[in-house]
Amino acid sequence: MPDLEYIFHPKSIAIAGASRNPQNPVNFFYLNALTQFGYEEELYLIHPKASELSGLKVYPSIMDVPGPVDHVICGIRASLTPQLMRECVAKGVKLVQLFTAGFSETGQEKGIRLEREIAEIARQGNVRVLGPNCLGIYCPDSRVSYVSSFPKESGSVGFLCQSGGNSYDLIHLGAARGVRFSKVVSYGNASDINEAELLEYFTHDPQTKVIIGYIEGTRDGRRLTNALQKATEAKPVIMLKGGATEAGNRVAASHTGALAGSNATWSSLFHQLGVMQVYDLQEMVDSILLFLHLKPLTGRKAGLIGIGGGCSVLATDVCTREGLTIVPFPLELREKLREIMPDELDPGTSMRNPVDVSGLGWYPDIFSKALETVANYNGIDFVLTYVTVPIGKGGSRRVNGHINSLIATKKRVDKPIATVLQRNDIPEVANVAFNLQNKCAQAGIPVFPSFDQAARAINRFAQHYER
Amino acid sequence: MPDLEYIFHPKSIAIAGASRNPQNPVNFFYLNALTQFGYEEELYLIHPKASELSGLKVYPSIMDVPGPVDHVICGIRASLTPQLMRECVAKGVKLVQLFTAGFSETGQEKGIRLEREIAEIARQGNVRVLGPNCLGIYCPDSRVSYVSSFPKESGSVGFLCQSGGNSYDLIHLGAARGVRFSKVVSYGNASDINEAELLEYFTHDPQTKVIIGYIEGTRDGRRLTNALQKATEAKPVIMLKGGATEAGNRVAASHTGALAGSNATWSSLFHQLGVMQVYDLQEMVDSILLFLHLKPLTGRKAGLIGIGGGCSVLATDVCTREGLTIVPFPLELREKLREIMPDELDPGTSMRNPVDVSGLGWYPDIFSKALETVANYNGIDFVLTYVTVPIGKGGSRRVNGHINSLIATKKRVDKPIATVLQRNDIPEVANVAFNLQNKCAQAGIPVFPSFDQAARAINRFAQHYER
Repeated sequence: MPDLEYIFHPKSIAIAGASRNPQNPVNFFYLNALTQFGYEEELYLIHPKASELSGLKVYPSIMDVPGPVDHVICGIRASLTPQLMRECVAKGVKLVQLFTAGFSETGQEKGIRLEREIAEIARQGNVRVLGPNCLGIYCPDSRVSYVSSFPKESGSVGFLCQSGGNSYDLIHLGAARGVRFSKVVSYGNASDINEAELLEYFTHDPQTKVIIGYIEGTRDGRRLTNALQKATEAKPVIMLKGGATEAGNRVAASHTGALAGSNATWSSLFHQLGVMQVYDLQEMVDSILLFLHLKPLTGRKAGLIGIGGGCSVLATDVCTREGLTIVPFPLELREKLREIMPDELDPGTSMRNPVDVSGLGWYPDIFSKALETVANYNGIDFVLTYVTVPIGKGGSRRVNGHINSLIATKKRVDKPIATVLQRNDIPEVANVAFNLQNKCAQAGIPVFPSFDQAARAINRFAQHYER
Repeated sequence: MPDLEYIFHPKSIAIAGASRNPQNPVNFFYLNALTQFGYEEELYLIHPKASELSGLKVYPSIMDVPGPVDHVICGIRASLTPQLMRECVAKGVKLVQLFTAGFSETGQEKGIRLEREIAEIARQGNVRVLGPNCLGIYCPDSRVSYVSSFPKESGSVGFLCQSGGNSYDLIHLGAARGVRFSKVVSYGNASDINEAELLEYFTHDPQTKVIIGYIEGTRDGRRLTNALQKATEAKPVIMLKGGATEAGNRVAASHTGALAGSNATWSSLFHQLGVMQVYDLQEMVDSILLFLHLKPLTGRKAGLIGIGGGCSVLATDVCTREGLTIVPFPLELREKLREIMPDELDPGTSMRNPVDVSGLGWYPDIFSKALETVANYNGIDFVLTYVTVPIGKGGSRRVNGHINSLIATKKRVDKPIATVLQRNDIPEVANVAFNLQNKCAQAGIPVFPSFDQAARAINRFAQHYER
């Protein structure tokens, strides 16, 4: 296990590059984020001229800081970074994280040389480097973060991310769907700490149950392959390869200077090692939810139960197209369901699979019995329920009752259950959907906004266990 | 042109099937919806026993209504409908819309016979029938609606929909993204008024500029084919075929009794006639937005410009995978862009296509100049801009400035512009995204929540004009 634990628990952080301009990204990502996120260890600011910034005392250089400095965040101009690195060596700093860009990702000789120079200073001086061209570390436990709105609650997903922006987006996308993280590292150009070392770390980190990564390229394919192999032996690993097309590859090269390699190579590597490959950030969150909440699938036979006839038709089409199997229920099961939902109560229901419970879905007791009956049928591998969030107060009350019934029933059955909670962008509806999907996440039910996302993710999840 | 105009402008409506139970769907969909939506012509309630419901006088039968009745909405039990139909004939009713289910969609002899019986009474008595098993008519102009929360504003999309639930979902999905409708008809089992006649109507309706349809099957393939052909000659036509897989087909048969036919037949018919086929409701809205706001595409060469490095990589991957072309910009154009966004301002930018404007995207003047420069480049067919809605008040101010700059710039350029507005489900963010996408819709800019949806829809849109 690589000795990286300390980078997540700095006893002191110095920021070089904050300024009087509140629009300065260094202020936004570090000074404000650390303060607002509740970092309570020593925080120092370095500035050649200012004596105070945001009410904090400022030191002209790292060397002037009175106590030890574990961790330096660097947002000064690229040309000034070698000098800063030398001071960090002299001061005994453990980690320098370079937010600064303008290195190998520019593709220009000057930037490439500069990146080599700082890596060399670090190596010789026994200082580790994160970046350059990265956002750094988010670790809720130690209240280290580069964005103040990230969840303060810790979780079990470890995330290595070559792109700072994608880490920002994915953490929020996940947070909004109930995902919480153990540690996230945005590592940029990977001049020193790289994807392989981070994978090795997450493989052994007891806090991390699922490892996810956004990778644009590698400079050490062999070490990465080994690390991926060990990681998949220990935990589910989900990877999003940035630059997976020829055009995207070219863009990745100018983004993090990554040597991206061909997509076919990456895909077959992932496939061989049992790494789940996804293709965008939403798919990543979809897959995380399945690994967090469901036990391994025994197959791809779906039992569909939800509200709406046209919706049941489309659900069947989408699921079938994505490789799931929807077999009509046998007569005996249909008769059992018909007893729970007699025609007289609602002539619009259907018992065949999908089970369209129609308006009876708003009666929690009826829905609960129907769901339990479907879930206990041994001809299916999992259950997918579905409901559209209706508009209006009455609708919101009804859908709350429906989801409460789902959650209560889920506790009584053994079969994996996932849910499609369809919604539109109208704020009132979006708000209800947000609350319900978080409630479900807490109850261990993965929620998807559409059949498309649900079916794609479940198909991939089933494939993962077919290997 | 079929003489259907009158069904959208009833001077009097009678509802049979409302009750004292406020949970009754007939109350919800008709009594409450018509009242709350502002229907101001004559509204009558029919009930064998009640003398008053919701403050409205109640008549024991249609025959007892003092004035003429144009339109009857029927939500009584299926077995009672023939008697009601006969009364409608005697009263000279023009249209009976049957919400009532339990007819041919049950697959049972009894229901099939009953449906034939009411259709026959109607034919002989010169009454038109909509349904059974349908939600009916939404026409904002005449304040007829089956859901009170539909937009009261009229628009240019005409929608024929075999499923009531899917019409409910699509209208709200569209409304939340700035789509407005001329008329919507949920027509269910199509015992009389069917998909072909509605297509014929929308083909000639001057209010309707884009025709969309959700169809599960047809009983008159020849008439439908003719109607589709005439429709596509006049207007863009987008179709979602419910039951497009074998499993889905089976479900559709029990939903609206549709004779669905093989998917291959439908797809090749759509393809031959120039009907755009989509596969779910979100795709439908995506395509509507393109037809409403963009002129025909000259090709699939994209100019991408937006905020974020990792995001630019993924955008390129997704767009490439969906068949769009992202060619690096020539040196001359890159130099022009570099003058607008010099390295000193932000070393994280990239000028190659995608143009990653990085943090400079928050400076409206700079973004506007860069966007205009890209849009004026004649090596691309359209521009796709992108930004993620940030969290917090500062972020919301910034993204508002960015979108305002986009809207202002769009007015000055001729090239088609679409936008990806990435967001997460956090209510504050969803709210900002909702307002911005409506602002964009009013300014004629189609907005997509993800690259996936944008690229799929634009690819389909380009294909449509390649025929």
